[in-house]
Amino acid sequence: MHDRAYRMVDVGGKAVTRRRAVATGRIRVGPEVMALLETGDIPKGDPLRLAEVAAIMAAKRTPDLLPLCHPLMLDHVGLICRLDTVDAVVDVFATVVTSARTGVEMEALAAVNAALLTIWDLCKPIEAALSIDGVRLLLKEGGKSGRWEHPDGLGALPEDWR
Amino acid sequence: MHDRAYRMVDVGGKAVTRRRAVATGRIRVGPEVMALLETGDIPKGDPLRLAEVAAIMAAKRTPDLLPLCHPLMLDHVGLICRLDTVDAVVDVFATVVTSARTGVEMEALAAVNAALLTIWDLCKPIEAALSIDGVRLLLKEGGKSGRWEHPDGLGALPEDWR
Amino acid sequence: MHDRAYRMVDVGGKAVTRRRAVATGRIRVGPEVMALLETGDIPKGDPLRLAEVAAIMAAKRTPDLLPLCHPLMLDHVGLICRLDTVDAVVDVFATVVTSARTGVEMEALAAVNAALLTIWDLCKPIEAALSIDGVRLLLKEGGKSGRWEHPDGLGALPEDWR
Amino acid sequence: MHDRAYRMVDVGGKAVTRRRAVATGRIRVGPEVMALLETGDIPKGDPLRLAEVAAIMAAKRTPDLLPLCHPLMLDHVGLICRLDTVDAVVDVFATVVTSARTGVEMEALAAVNAALLTIWDLCKPIEAALSIDGVRLLLKEGGKSGRWEHPDGLGALPEDWR
Amino acid sequence: MHDRAYRMVDVGGKAVTRRRAVATGRIRVGPEVMALLETGDIPKGDPLRLAEVAAIMAAKRTPDLLPLCHPLMLDHVGLICRLDTVDAVVDVFATVVTSARTGVEMEALAAVNAALLTIWDLCKPIEAALSIDGVRLLLKEGGKSGRWEHPDGLGALPEDWR
Amino acid sequence: MHDRAYRMVDVGGKAVTRRRAVATGRIRVGPEVMALLETGDIPKGDPLRLAEVAAIMAAKRTPDLLPLCHPLMLDHVGLICRLDTVDAVVDVFATVVTSARTGVEMEALAAVNAALLTIWDLCKPIEAALSIDGVRLLLKEGGKSGRWEHPDGLGALPEDWR
Repeated sequence: MHDRAYRMVDVGGKAVTRRRAVATGRIRVGPEVMALLETGDIPKGDPLRLAEVAAIMAAKRTPDLLPLCHPLMLDHVGLICRLDTVDAVVDVFATVVTSARTGVEMEALAAVNAALLTIWDLCKPIEAALSIDGVRLLLKEGGKSGRWEHPDGLGALPEDWR
Repeated sequence: MHDRAYRMVDVGGKAVTRRRAVATGRIRVGPEVMALLETGDIPKGDPLRLAEVAAIMAAKRTPDLLPLCHPLMLDHVGLICRLDTVDAVVDVFATVVTSARTGVEMEALAAVNAALLTIWDLCKPIEAALSIDGVRLLLKEGGKSGRWEHPDGLGALPEDWR
Repeated sequence: MHDRAYRMVDVGGKAVTRRRAVATGRIRVGPEVMALLETGDIPKGDPLRLAEVAAIMAAKRTPDLLPLCHPLMLDHVGLICRLDTVDAVVDVFATVVTSARTGVEMEALAAVNAALLTIWDLCKPIEAALSIDGVRLLLKEGGKSGRWEHPDGLGALPEDWR
Repeated sequence: MHDRAYRMVDVGGKAVTRRRAVATGRIRVGPEVMALLETGDIPKGDPLRLAEVAAIMAAKRTPDLLPLCHPLMLDHVGLICRLDTVDAVVDVFATVVTSARTGVEMEALAAVNAALLTIWDLCKPIEAALSIDGVRLLLKEGGKSGRWEHPDGLGALPEDWR
Repeated sequence: MHDRAYRMVDVGGKAVTRRRAVATGRIRVGPEVMALLETGDIPKGDPLRLAEVAAIMAAKRTPDLLPLCHPLMLDHVGLICRLDTVDAVVDVFATVVTSARTGVEMEALAAVNAALLTIWDLCKPIEAALSIDGVRLLLKEGGKSGRWEHPDGLGALPEDWR
Repeated sequence: MHDRAYRMVDVGGKAVTRRRAVATGRIRVGPEVMALLETGDIPKGDPLRLAEVAAIMAAKRTPDLLPLCHPLMLDHVGLICRLDTVDAVVDVFATVVTSARTGVEMEALAAVNAALLTIWDLCKPIEAALSIDGVRLLLKEGGKSGRWEHPDGLGALPEDWR
């Protein structure tokens, strides 16, 4: 490894524009947890509602979690959780918006991860062998490079978040 | 959903014992990033070394990230990163140890996730279509319920972490 | 004012014992907000559920908020919200438990305040002239000084929290 | 309760303007504490000076305390404490100013609450039966909705903060 | 550099004992600032009192500042500031005490540094060419290695802190 | 001391401009540590690389550390470490850039201090009698007062940071 110093890259020359990023991921919870999620009987409280809160707070804390990330003002953070009862999976989608000199991909990914870990935390008394998969950036827009979509498409992303 | 209040469950009646948890996960980086990881040419600096730092800091911040988690003193946090050059994947393993009244599964998972997102952050200028998969708890030990191993086994976990 | 230095007082000579504190407070929301609370139609989401989360997180962050407070491990944090529809008031009660060398009165009060401000935040688009009153410590127990109850009694505190 | 997701509302379409908010509240300390406040003999140090510090730090940490609050740059935070020796009450007033897309009401209220809890923390060795009352927003200005004053008036708010 | 992973070293095998550390440092403020410090006329408020607060808060936040530090409960934090009017220097001494499996040297040093930077922040409108020097650990005690004193002695450390 | 309230001074009337600050400092490590730094054999891992990370994170956390500092968005943070093998000293230089209404002197100084303390933390198992000296602001630019350089000059500051 060459001697490359860690640094927060200089974004001072970039324009303040509206930038948005959407990320997704899923947690495999198994049939027992899924049944309780459907009837609302997870003993520690509703994991999906708490996941929304954790996602918002994680997006705000991204510069604490990821050492090289810029501190940013955020205009909007939202999370959608969807139960896939056939596969016993919860899919989450997070959107983050800012007016800044750099993008919010890492904020959207941090929100997805915190949401999934929060669901894990509330479901683990019932099932310990959970797993998180498919964490991906779906799209980003704003800034010089413009809109980018994941080469595999936007999957099940709701229409109004596309 | 029934009316179940969120609360930090009372662990006051549990014994202070040495508790350990090991978690794992992987990031698919693609061949271009993998080649740069092997030669040490990621422009933003060595992602694997920074992932170790992010994992330690995330384990310490778990109670900030996951709303219902107890604040805990940690005795040890460690991270191992392994390049799988054939599949262009980086596997990470995190171990967390505490002397406390409750376990550190979520701390180990938070460490894994922060490590993977940190690798993502440093590699994304080269490849945007990254993905995180296979985040799982591998084992936990200590406390009343004793040792638990993932039903699929410990995979490629190093011998001295088993 | 004499020259008295601020310091975190030395609790090293005190015993680690189970310590508990319960605090209360109320927010006057007015009839319009109360009607929406009853039917579950506050547009920003359920304020009472979010207040539980904010209370837990504030109890954990007390040493950041109150400069001279000791950092403490917490065994338990819980919050109860009660609608008083006649007076258009929400009463909250917070309980905090630790095994430590000092008490958790300030943690319980910080939890109550964060819960009340969270309700405020979600209700303020409907009514700006809210008010918080009656923030009091109801009881504390554990440690050398033993159990203390507020001289005016425990009010409407639920039986199992007394 | 209908299914309303928690989210950080999108303020991206609002203008960056100078916005200000002023909040107030009081702590009832009783005659013994008031006598020590007047002579400067609170053993843990001057509570009023420390309250100023706690107010500033709490205004900065509002997005950590209140889950749905936007992270904001703050231009100014100030606190005034006033002893009402007749009623043995300390009144506090906090003002917060920002140049942002959303207001700072919750920051002003968080500052007031942290100031009052800090006074509590330093006075509680002398008197445990303290109480906080009358926490209200007094005024806000800036943004599309313009200036708002509390319907009961600005009370004892100093002239230059009106 | 060999491949040495960053890790939080395992202290699980060490005993919980009372551990104490004392650190010191100085800020050269120049005659103009020193005159204002003596008469109490620094416009931004008393830097020495605020330094005490910053020292306590920095000791609590050491695990956030220094990546490999263990999170610790602290029993006591104190700071002394001394004006050396002849040399136009402020000397600070910080003591930190814990009951833990590892020492608090870094906490004492973090407290000293935060105190000195806080004095800097309040004095810089008057004099920009300030400097910090002589930051040293003076003593540590507790744990297996016992008491250690700086080879140059304890300098001007007050008797009751030795 | 006159009664001067602590406050976050109002910068609302100042212009948003690009502002930069550079600070420096040094840690005296002694010959044994210096030999290990040169060969890359510090057992806890490379202190210089970790110092870069700590500097970036400390710059972001300055408003938490220094009570009266404004929260700021940062455009850039960088750190340079230089081994002076003759004197057994490590010199560090930190640069911080923002687009804001106030300067980043304290952020640059906080970055320098965190870098030096991080080096300390990793070297202290080998040598306890370390010392930090020569912490100074070297230059600041941007804003109404324009460019300022330390009266003693810029020392060994690299050309492209001048």
